[in-house]
This record gives sequence, C-alpha cells and structure tokens, in this order.
Amino acid sequence: MRLTLPPRLSPAQFAAALRDFASVVGERWVLASDADRDAYSDIYAPGPESEWPLSAAVAPATVEEVQAVVRLANRHKTPLWPVSRGKNLGYGTAAPRVAGSIILDLGRMQRIHELDTDLGYCVVEPGVGFMDLYEHIQREQAPLMMSVPGNGWGSVLGNALDHGIGYTPYGIHARNLCGLEVVMPDGDLMRTGMGAMDDNPAWHLFPLSYGPDWTHMFTQSNLGIVTRAGVWLQPMPESSLQLTWDIPNEEDIGWVVDTIAPMKIAGLIEQNVFIPSWLGKMVLLGQRRDFWDEPGAIPEWRVNELLREHRLGYWQVQIRLYGDESVNRAKAAVIKAAMARHLDAPPQEQLWRQGDPLHAYDTTMGVPSAVPLQMGDWVGGRGAHMGFSPVVPAHSRHIMDQLRRSRRIIADHDVDFYASFTIGGRFANNINMLMYDRDNQAQVRNIRTLFDALIRDAATAGYGEYRTHIGWMDPVADTFNYNDHAQRRWTEKVKNALDPNGIIAPGKQGIWPAAFPRNGGEQAQ
Amino acid sequence: MRLTLPPRLSPAQFAAALRDFASVVGERWVLASDADRDAYSDIYAPGPESEWPLSAAVAPATVEEVQAVVRLANRHKTPLWPVSRGKNLGYGTAAPRVAGSIILDLGRMQRIHELDTDLGYCVVEPGVGFMDLYEHIQREQAPLMMSVPGNGWGSVLGNALDHGIGYTPYGIHARNLCGLEVVMPDGDLMRTGMGAMDDNPAWHLFPLSYGPDWTHMFTQSNLGIVTRAGVWLQPMPESSLQLTWDIPNEEDIGWVVDTIAPMKIAGLIEQNVFIPSWLGKMVLLGQRRDFWDEPGAIPEWRVNELLREHRLGYWQVQIRLYGDESVNRAKAAVIKAAMARHLDAPPQEQLWRQGDPLHAYDTTMGVPSAVPLQMGDWVGGRGAHMGFSPVVPAHSRHIMDQLRRSRRIIADHDVDFYASFTIGGRFANNINMLMYDRDNQAQVRNIRTLFDALIRDAATAGYGEYRTHIGWMDPVADTFNYNDHAQRRWTEKVKNALDPNGIIAPGKQGIWPAAFPRNGGEQAQ
Repeated sequence: MRLTLPPRLSPAQFAAALRDFASVVGERWVLASDADRDAYSDIYAPGPESEWPLSAAVAPATVEEVQAVVRLANRHKTPLWPVSRGKNLGYGTAAPRVAGSIILDLGRMQRIHELDTDLGYCVVEPGVGFMDLYEHIQREQAPLMMSVPGNGWGSVLGNALDHGIGYTPYGIHARNLCGLEVVMPDGDLMRTGMGAMDDNPAWHLFPLSYGPDWTHMFTQSNLGIVTRAGVWLQPMPESSLQLTWDIPNEEDIGWVVDTIAPMKIAGLIEQNVFIPSWLGKMVLLGQRRDFWDEPGAIPEWRVNELLREHRLGYWQVQIRLYGDESVNRAKAAVIKAAMARHLDAPPQEQLWRQGDPLHAYDTTMGVPSAVPLQMGDWVGGRGAHMGFSPVVPAHSRHIMDQLRRSRRIIADHDVDFYASFTIGGRFANNINMLMYDRDNQAQVRNIRTLFDALIRDAATAGYGEYRTHIGWMDPVADTFNYNDHAQRRWTEKVKNALDPNGIIAPGKQGIWPAAFPRNGGEQAQ
Repeated sequence: MRLTLPPRLSPAQFAAALRDFASVVGERWVLASDADRDAYSDIYAPGPESEWPLSAAVAPATVEEVQAVVRLANRHKTPLWPVSRGKNLGYGTAAPRVAGSIILDLGRMQRIHELDTDLGYCVVEPGVGFMDLYEHIQREQAPLMMSVPGNGWGSVLGNALDHGIGYTPYGIHARNLCGLEVVMPDGDLMRTGMGAMDDNPAWHLFPLSYGPDWTHMFTQSNLGIVTRAGVWLQPMPESSLQLTWDIPNEEDIGWVVDTIAPMKIAGLIEQNVFIPSWLGKMVLLGQRRDFWDEPGAIPEWRVNELLREHRLGYWQVQIRLYGDESVNRAKAAVIKAAMARHLDAPPQEQLWRQGDPLHAYDTTMGVPSAVPLQMGDWVGGRGAHMGFSPVVPAHSRHIMDQLRRSRRIIADHDVDFYASFTIGGRFANNINMLMYDRDNQAQVRNIRTLFDALIRDAATAGYGEYRTHIGWMDPVADTFNYNDHAQRRWTEKVKNALDPNGIIAPGKQGIWPAAFPRNGGEQAQ
C-alpha cells in the first residue's frame, strides 16, 4: 500500500516524527514500507484497502516506550491508532479510522504478569493472544478456562476492550476486565480500581473503585491506551454436560429465546448461549459452490433440501453446563423439561469429565479456535465478512421483529442469510454475517448498500449496534441520537479535555476530537 | 443547626440563590430553617453535627427541576450535595463534604417507571426506597426479588451509586445498574448505554455501550446527578434452601473463606455470602449493658462465656441457594461435603417454597429490614456507628492478615470488636462496625483516633477502603497513591472540564474541583 501521510503533515514532518519514534523503539520497529502498510491494512475490507489507509506502524515493547511514543505523537500531532494484535476481523482488522494514522502496534507486549489459580484471574498485556494464554494455562497446568470468541487469533485484552463476546459463563468479555493500567493521552500512567493504590492485592479482584470507576471508559474508546489488564478466568469445572437440539423452523427462534432467556437470567444456565442459523454449520462442510452454484442467495426450496440432506435444523441450540456432575444433571433435567414443552426430540447429550481430551471445536470449553473463520471461504475468491450486530432484548417480541426485518432486507439484496443470536442475559447479540468476495466489485457494492440499509432500518425500529466496522463508525454513532447525541457530546467533551491534540484514535466509534474534522472530513454517508 | 453559608457567598447572595431555587421548586421545597438543617445533618456524626454543616436543602420533583436547579447553582456558584434519600448511615447520612453546601434532596422523585417481570428489571428514580420498591413488587405480584442492604430505609438507586452491598446473588449493587439518566454539571441531560439512542428497548438490558460506557463514572462520583436508572432484579426462585453453620473459633475464618470463595467464584454459590462475627447476633439480643456493664471492650473470657451461654459460634455462616429444589439439593450436598472437611456439626437447613411466608429478617430473600440497625443501640445513649471497610482478597492469607491487624488495633483502643466478611467473589468486603455513644466525648475521640489508625494501618499493608464517612474521604483518597495519585489527578481533570464551577458535590470521595480548595480548606488530618 502506498504512503498516505497523516493529516496536515508534510513529508519532512512525517520523516522527523518517524525518526523520533525510532529513537524510542529502535529502527526496526518503525514500519513504513509499502509491504509494512499492507500488513496492517484491512484484509477483509469491503472495498480497496486504500480506502482506509495508514502511514506507518510503530511497535513499542514496554509501557515506558508506549508513554514515550504518546508524548512524541503529541509533539508531532500524529494520530495513533492503537491495536493489540490487529485481528478485529470484520470490523477493520488493524486499519485506522483516519487516513494516514500511525498504527500503534502493541503486539510485542506479550507478558503474562500473573496467573492466579486460587482466585481465578490473569494479568495480561495487549499482545497476549488467546492461543498464547491457552498454552500458558496448559503449561502451568492451571485449572482455569478462558472465554474465547469465534476468532482465536486475536488478543485477549483487545477483544474484551472492543466488547467481544464468547460462549461460556464469562462471555461478556468486557465484564471480566478488572483493574487496568492505562497510558493517558499525555503519556502519564494510571491504574484503575484498587490499582490506584500502590501494590494493592485486590487490584484485579474488586470490580469497582474508591470513587468513580474508569474501567469501562476505556472500552471501545479513544481516551487512553490500555497496556495491562486483569482478566477473570473461570475455574475449570470437574465436569461438563452439553445438550444439543436441532430446531426445525425459522420461527421457532421465538419460543427458543423465551424458553432459554429466563433460565439464563435466573442463573440456571450460566453460559452465553449461542444460537446460529443453519449456515453456521454449512460453512464448515464446504464452499457455497458445493451446494448451489448460481449467483444470488440460495433459494428457499434449496435451503430446505439442504437441511434435510444434512440433517440440520434451521437453528442449533447448544447449552453447556459446568460444574459438579450431580448439579449439572439436576440442571439438565429442568432445561430438558422446559424445551420438551415445545419440541419432541430429546437433545443429544455429551458428557465431559476432567481428564477427557478437548477438541479444537470446543470453544465453549475455552479452546481457542480458528474454525469459525472458515466462513470466509464460503463465497470463494478472497472471501471476507462483515458483521451487522444489533443488540436486541432477549424476548420473542423483539427477536422476531428484528429477525423479520433484517431477513427481508438481506433477501432483497439477494445475499445468503446467516444470523446468530447469543443470549447474554437480558439481551441478545444478533450477529448477521455478510460474506463476500473482495474482488467482486458488484458483490462489494451490494454488501455496502445492504449494510447501510440494515443500520438505517434497525435504528428506525429503535435498535442499535454494539460494534461496527471502521467505515460505519460514524453512521452508527449518528443513530445514538438521544437529546441531540448527548452521550457523544459528553464523550467528546471529555476527549477534548484529556487529549487536546486528539492523537489517540480520532474517530473511533464516532468520537471526534476538536483537532480533527468530524467524519474524518469525508461527506457523511 | 445554625446557618453556615456556602463558601464565598454573602448573606445577600445566598438569599438571592434561595429565591431563584424557590422559583423552580416552589417556596416550600427550599428548606433553610434551623430545624430543616437538623433534618439533613449526620445523625450518626462522630462529633458535633456542626462539624459537617449545611446551609439549606432544595428538593426538586422532576428531572427538569433538577436541571434548572443545576443551572442556577452554576450561576450562583453554590455547591450542591445530591442525596437520594439521605440514609447513608455510618458514612455521613445526608450531610455534605463542604461546609455550607446546599443539599439537593432527590427524595421527592419517587417514580417507578418500569417493572418488567419477563426480563427482570425496574427503572427507578432516586427517591424510591427499598421499602417502596418492595411494596410495589408485592402489589404487582411480580415474581421478582430485590437485593437489599442492612439498612432497608435507603434509596435503591442511592445505595447502588454509593457501592452498597447486599446478600443475594445480586449483592454488588452497582453491578446491577444498567442504563442511567444523568443531569450533567451544566444542566444538560444524558442517557448512558443503549439509552443514548431514543427509545431503545435494550437501554436497561445491555450493560455496555456503543463506545465507552459511562455508568460507573457516576458511582461514588461528583461528575453528574443520576435521576433515573435501570436496576436488574433477580427472578423469584421456585424454592430456596438455607444452610447455617456456627463456626466456633476466630481463626476458623481462614478455612471458611478458603472453602466458600472457590465455590462462589465457580458459580456453585451465587449469593454474596455474609459472615458476621458473634456481636452481629448479640446486638439483636439486647444492649451491651445486659451482658457487660464496664467501660472498655468486653474481655475475652466474658466473650467466651457469652458464646457458650447463647450457643453462638465466633462466626456465623449462612448460605442460601435459589432456584429449583432439585438443583438446590444437589448444590447443598456439594457445599455440605466441603464444609464437613473442617467441621463435624452439620448445618441447620431451612427450606422455603413459593407461597411460604417471608419474615422481616429475610434480607437474603429480598425483604428490606431495619433490624440490623439495632446495633445502633448496643452502646446506649445516642448510639451510632461508623464502618471501617477495607476490600480484601478472598483468600485466608489476606483475610487473616487484615483480621489480626485490625483486631489488635481495635483492642488497643478498648472497643468491642464486630467484624464481618462478605464474600462477593474474588474479594471480600471486611466491614468493621465501630459503635459509640455520640454524647460521650471520650468515646467519640477514641473512635476517631481508632479510625485514623485503621486507615493508616490498612494502607501500609496495601489494602484500601471501598467506602468511607465524609470526614475521612480525603485521608482515604490519599491512600490511593499509585503514581502520585494518578487516578485522582485524572478524575479531577475530567471534573474540571465538565464542572468548571465545581458545583456538584465538591470533595466527594476526595475529588476536588479547582474551584474549591483541597480538603475543603481544612488542614489535612
């Protein structure tokens, strides 16, 4: 990718900035060649990568180097786009919101500071991936389990900060963060919660502060750079029981949610329950062309044929119970009775006991996996996906409403429908995976039109996204319109007070410092 | 209480401010007589109430009135001290940090906007007390349960905002807050989380935001005034099983915590487990003089005699299980087996089923109660208490360390020892109740010296308080000393940006706006 300079910087000023950065991190960790820029571009970009270009990347190895880089960025007025491991697939990967930003790559910060088996937590730096932490846990033979997202390449910390979800009792990853170390926009260093006291052993244990707690100010945020965090880990259970149901029809999702959500809210089910539609299973069986080789969405008659052929339900429900076998059995009986009110077929049951092997597919047992990413291959070519992800109350009224509307719009755009609902408590994350071939211009154009339409339609109905691709951060922020965008106005006031040069991730989640034009100076979409 | 003017205001300016407030809320809701001031003073004050004096109170009835009052307070530069119901007993009640502040009494805002039985939440204003919400739930026959603190008079919202705790699975009350409406320091209005979108039905369901979430910025905070909040409520279980053990010796608390905390962390026990020392039971049986009528702490031989006479353990452990009877039975078997490794005597068991009556003592079943407040009568006279409340990791190493130190210091000050540990997960709140007769000068002096000593000692060992009395907010804030008090410096930067006149609760939790001198201009203690 060719060089795009940071806004308002001359080539000479840019070169001076890079020289200063190199004096901190060493020449080899200032990455500014065309190939370097390619490495940080959005490999799933819905359009040419050059639409979200960067100028360079800087990769510090320690918190002191991060502080020094931030101070220099203030001096040179260069926007920094911090990434942990840059695996935010479907949401922009490592690419920045403002053209020509410098990627602050924290991937070299890979220390695991603590792994406490008694109290169930670890303390990690941004570069620690799920695979790294998994290996560390295995090596230490620690009886602890991670909660992993679909993409197991990413950063434990980065995923939690971006409101990532997983499919265990610890599935709202941001809620597991406890005690952050943060480089402030002026280069100063803060610790949140009980960490605000030197050497307080409850830093990563008590989830509040004395005074206001700032932890969640730093999630989906451009107000600071998190360089270390406590992450709660689930004790590895003595045993686990998994119940699997195939749910025949699309409309069944209504009773499914109304049956499961109350048990989740009551605590009988502890896990975040993931309910994918059939395509979630089909992408693991082959490519689209193996099942239907025409352009446009697979027609309904063929979908029904495929479900019969492959003995798939329209939806699949898997509920995993963790703990003592006797307790799991008692819970399973209650859950099976509740499901049996709607469905004759009993679930498949799968028992796991400590000592039994775990498989690469066992994301609900904390095994990081790249298997779900196979969906990138569905359409063929340089396959990619974007996620349209509204948050919906966990009640049939809302679930069916959102499903019908998004289903119709996706059908109108002649795109294969792949939705999932993850019941996280009183709400569900409804993730609609939109898959495309990056080199097919017509497909890309169509996906973009579709994405715009989905955001508009959900907002009209009153629902908002929990996360989005860098290219749509502003349109989504615009939908959060209460009292003339009061929350955004508030956040920007805080932003301007703390980061007057606007150097930390300007535009992230639609938060713009005064130092940069709203929407990055682009026309609003 | 005689009038103390707000800092820097002349009597004429003060009168003008009150006239303006009256034009908003009506004359009768501006309360500025000596009797009015008495009503808002700290009834448990460790010293004369006049040490924490106020000038007046203003009681708006609606959010629009709150906004108007805040705008006027900016014009007149009058500090406001917002209270919900002013029942922060032991921590200052309704009294303000800065002498002469105007109490912003939100007790008239008593609307319950929603009570959703399907998804288990309510939406309340600050004036809604635990008793009010309890009655509302009963009236609506809603199968929902609150989590209540020891003092059931207080505000549901106010208690959660001040990091109050309860003894149910929803016992970390601030973690149940979901979606706030907040009057900003300039009188503008914001809604957090999904409420940042007009009419989003997930406002009180999804605990994060699109972008940074501000909910916890407003707990123990002076950065805004919360006028409405979603509060999650537990579904009323089909049945409940309570297990009670008397634990004979002081040192047993080590194995008790090491036995219970892992089951709490693993989710087998859902409840916040409250473990009071014997005096917590004794205060319900009579006054101190009924058991020991000498000055100074009850000597150990007499304590042992009393424990035998009243068949009390040094500690009492009650674990309550909620849900389907079969599941509770299975869990109880696991818990009993774990406890039996250390203690021969089996627990008392108490089964409750839907339809069975609930008693005023059943705080663990969501019944608000004033019974625990009886401890105020222990010493006789105008009895009162303060709570010394460090947060300690839920592990014997830390629990025993903190216990031994605070026990010794309290004994050195010849004060009865009453401690409790509430296991909230990976940590415990260690609340040491210090009871005194407000009219006994020597007792009050002794309690203050003791309180100073406890704070210093805990900080030296690395532990911090989660909450404290207004008179000690600065000394406790001083103990949070990481990187030259980085968190406090950060909070004050935000404070100054958002509240340049410093009118919202200056000094709360040791956060001082530039407009007021640190420590309220007093000498640091």
